[in-house]
Order: sequence, then structure tokens, then C-alpha cells
Amino acid sequence: MSEQPRSSRRWLERVRSLRDRATREREGVCYVEGIRQVLSAQEGDHPLEAILVDPARLKSEVAWEAIAAAREAGAEYVVLTTREFERISSRDNPVGIAAIVRWWAGPLEALTPVPEGLYLVADDVRDPGNLGTLIRTLDAAGGQAVIVLAGTDPTHQNALRASLGTTFRVPVYRAESHEALFGWFARHGVTTIATSAKATHPLWEMPVRMPVAVLVGNEGDGLAAEIVERCDLRVAIPMLGTATSLNVSVAAGIVLYEVRRKQSSGHN
Amino acid sequence: MSEQPRSSRRWLERVRSLRDRATREREGVCYVEGIRQVLSAQEGDHPLEAILVDPARLKSEVAWEAIAAAREAGAEYVVLTTREFERISSRDNPVGIAAIVRWWAGPLEALTPVPEGLYLVADDVRDPGNLGTLIRTLDAAGGQAVIVLAGTDPTHQNALRASLGTTFRVPVYRAESHEALFGWFARHGVTTIATSAKATHPLWEMPVRMPVAVLVGNEGDGLAAEIVERCDLRVAIPMLGTATSLNVSVAAGIVLYEVRRKQSSGHN
Repeated sequence: MSEQPRSSRRWLERVRSLRDRATREREGVCYVEGIRQVLSAQEGDHPLEAILVDPARLKSEVAWEAIAAAREAGAEYVVLTTREFERISSRDNPVGIAAIVRWWAGPLEALTPVPEGLYLVADDVRDPGNLGTLIRTLDAAGGQAVIVLAGTDPTHQNALRASLGTTFRVPVYRAESHEALFGWFARHGVTTIATSAKATHPLWEMPVRMPVAVLVGNEGDGLAAEIVERCDLRVAIPMLGTATSLNVSVAAGIVLYEVRRKQSSGHN
Repeated sequence: MSEQPRSSRRWLERVRSLRDRATREREGVCYVEGIRQVLSAQEGDHPLEAILVDPARLKSEVAWEAIAAAREAGAEYVVLTTREFERISSRDNPVGIAAIVRWWAGPLEALTPVPEGLYLVADDVRDPGNLGTLIRTLDAAGGQAVIVLAGTDPTHQNALRASLGTTFRVPVYRAESHEALFGWFARHGVTTIATSAKATHPLWEMPVRMPVAVLVGNEGDGLAAEIVERCDLRVAIPMLGTATSLNVSVAAGIVLYEVRRKQSSGHN
């Protein structure tokens, strides 16, 4: 374990540069912090470019094993002082481990749906926390992939944090346009469910034909009317109080689990 | 419309003092920003102590009508300069309206459940955004009240923002202890559903007997084991991927809507 005082500044600058979305996308990397995220990246077989450690702080044995494995796999091992680590950390109490992970959302064209597949499309979701929670929810529901179109970026710090590491476990793809998205649905026979506060089809009676994609829109306006129109099914979650809509992740969770319930009961 | 240059400083100080939870709780007020929140407070019949306005910015007619109504009802009308407003605002682009609202979570003892009532208990939820989303979700599901025990505070800025005004529409109560909470359940015949990743009762087969309370716990650990034990039913949402848990609001949404589905289909 050799300290690298001269190179640490270069890595601090690199981490700082990754606050910029365009840089992350150009380089196909993201920056993560904490033991869970680093482990998830490894479990998802995403190579670590570098692992940044404050040995004075980092006590977890699991973390030190992860570091050994990362170095074995070729990750650069960067020792930081406690002060240096605090400078790159977005946490109040950093545990002392961070990493630069080679990860990016793949192009939709590379995704081939499976016959019983369940997919979630985040169309112009703006809040990184919501996007991360959507990925976590699709993963929990046993879905195959999340497809992101416009909006925020899954490699944003808050998206990664909210996803609780699932971003590295469930595949995330990027659709360039609605044309590309609906072309992909058509080519692969994926049926589509739009969640929309304005829809009239009752949630609990929706017929489900797999593979299926559930589409959710942005936080303010939901899915665009023309996108809702293009879907095979327009499903409304009953609004039974004064609220006129649900948080986008909550709505997605309710619809995704309703798909699962129908599958499990054979009630399509 | 008279400007109040001398008093504006006093109000700025008051708003600043309300960043402190203890102050808000002691005084029974909260501070809200934006048209939607101010309207929701009025629609929920919560008196406004003061309405703070930057006339140079505020263009919405609806907002000006709300201001007139607030003044009529006795709210202090405080004109701020654009710079002053920016100082109290937590937004990047403030619309120029904020208010101090007389609102507080009532004591649980004051709540009498209705026979078909649906209640949500947030037990030690830590993130204000999650608590606000829980309130919004319970409201959307047509529930009667949210009961908060320990954890964060519904009058936190981020909680109010995430609740999208529903905090002022659906009653929120505060339980002082688990003893008080379970005493209240027992006295009023409220059945209890614990959501727990460790539970074994399958979500879709849960029997529901109204009135019912759904309990969710904190983001890291969920409900404490002894609380799960004390509930009538322990329900697990199936975890079908690599994620070991759902976001607390997503989990609550799935269980609350499953209660509604069972009611609507008569499948108790």
C-alpha cells in the first residue's frame, strides 16, 4: 500500500471534472461514493477506473476486501488525506471510499427484450432522485431494464444515491427520440402502458401482455399527450383525495407491481 | 397597497427563525413558498399569519386573488423587494409569494377514526422529502390522516415541497410514543399492517379489515422488529430483482393502493 501524494491532486481534479454531465457522458464514467455503491459496481461487473480511499477513516473490512479486488482487477488505487477526501465528498460523514466507475447507459438499439420482459421508460424525468428511485423500483419489481429518454441523467450523484446501487445491477438504456423508442417497441412487439392522470382505463382492470413497457413522464406535466396517445393502454391510478397526481416513482411502483400481481394471479 | 419598509426586516428575521424546527413547533406555524402551497393552505382553512410578496415578480392573477383573500382574512401583508425576497427564498426562480401559515400536527388523541378509514403511520422517517411524499400518497389514496412518530418534521421546507400542498389538505397527527400509538389503535379497533422486507405474508393475499393503518419505518432499517411484531399483519412486497427494499414512499403507495384495490373488488 503505497501513498501517491503527487498523483492525488490529479485525481481530485478528475473527480471534480466529473460533476459535469457532458464530461461523464463523453468519458463513459461516473463517480460514486460509499461502500454500497462501490460493491454494487463490482457486483454488476463494471470496471473501476480508480478507487479513492481515506485509510484514516475507512474501517469496514468488507470495503477493504472490495479495494483489494478492485486493485487486482486493475483499478488505480488513490490514497487521499482526510481533508482531500472531504473535498470530493458530498456527504457529511464520508466513510472514506469512492470510485470512478466505467458505466454508461447503452443505446436502446443494443437491447433485445425477452418474452416475459418488464421495462420502465422514464421520459423526461427531471429530478435525479426520482430517476434513481425509478431504477431501484424497476429492479425491485424484477424488471429487465430502464429506458431513459431526455430529462436528467442516471449518473448524477443524487440519481446514483437514490438508486442505492441498483443502477449498476439493472441495465439502463438511452433512447434518442420518441421515434426511436416507438420503433423499438414495434420491432420487438413490446406492448406499452402509459401512466397518465388524465387516462380513463382503471388500473386494476388493465390487461397485460408481455413483454410490456410502462411509461412515466416528467414531474410537472406527466407524459406528453401525444405520447399517451401512442401507447397501447392508458392507465390512470385512482386519485381518491385532493391530490391530483402521485410522485412519479410512487406511480411507477404501483403500476409495475400491478403488472406483477396480474402475472402472478394469471389474471391478464 | 402600502409598502412597509420598516417592518420588512422584522419579517425577514421571523422567516429566518422558522428554519428552526423547535421554533416552528413552539409557535405552531410553518413557512411556505409558491402559489400552490399558499392556495393549499387557504383551501385547507389554515390561517395565514403573514403573506410575503415581491410585487415586481409576482404576475399570477390567481396569486393576487389569494393575497386579497388572505388580507381580508386578517393576514399581515408584507411587501418585499426583489432582493429581500431572494434572501428568504429557497428557489432558484422564486415566483414572489410566500406565507407564514398557522399549522401544526395535532395530537393523536384528537383523532377519531372513521369506520372505513385508511391511515398511514410514518414511524421515524428521516428524509423530509420522503415524509412529504408519504403525505401526498396517503392523500391520493383517499386516506383519512397521516400519523407521524419521531423522525423528521412535516413542516420542514423539503417535506412541504414534496407534499405539493397536501399537508394542508389531509390531516397530520403526531404520536408521542409507540405506547400511545398502539393504545389508540386498540381503543378504536384500528387494524394494523406493517410493511417489512422481512415479512412473509404475501402482499396480494393480505386480508384487509377497515379501519386500517399502514405502518412504514425509517429509510435505513424499516420498522423496528418489535413494532412489526405488534401489528396485526406483516406484509412483504415481493423483491423480485437485486434490490432488497423499496423507497419508503413507493412501498407505502403500493400497499395503500392494494388496500384500495381489495376494497373496490370486495376481495377482503
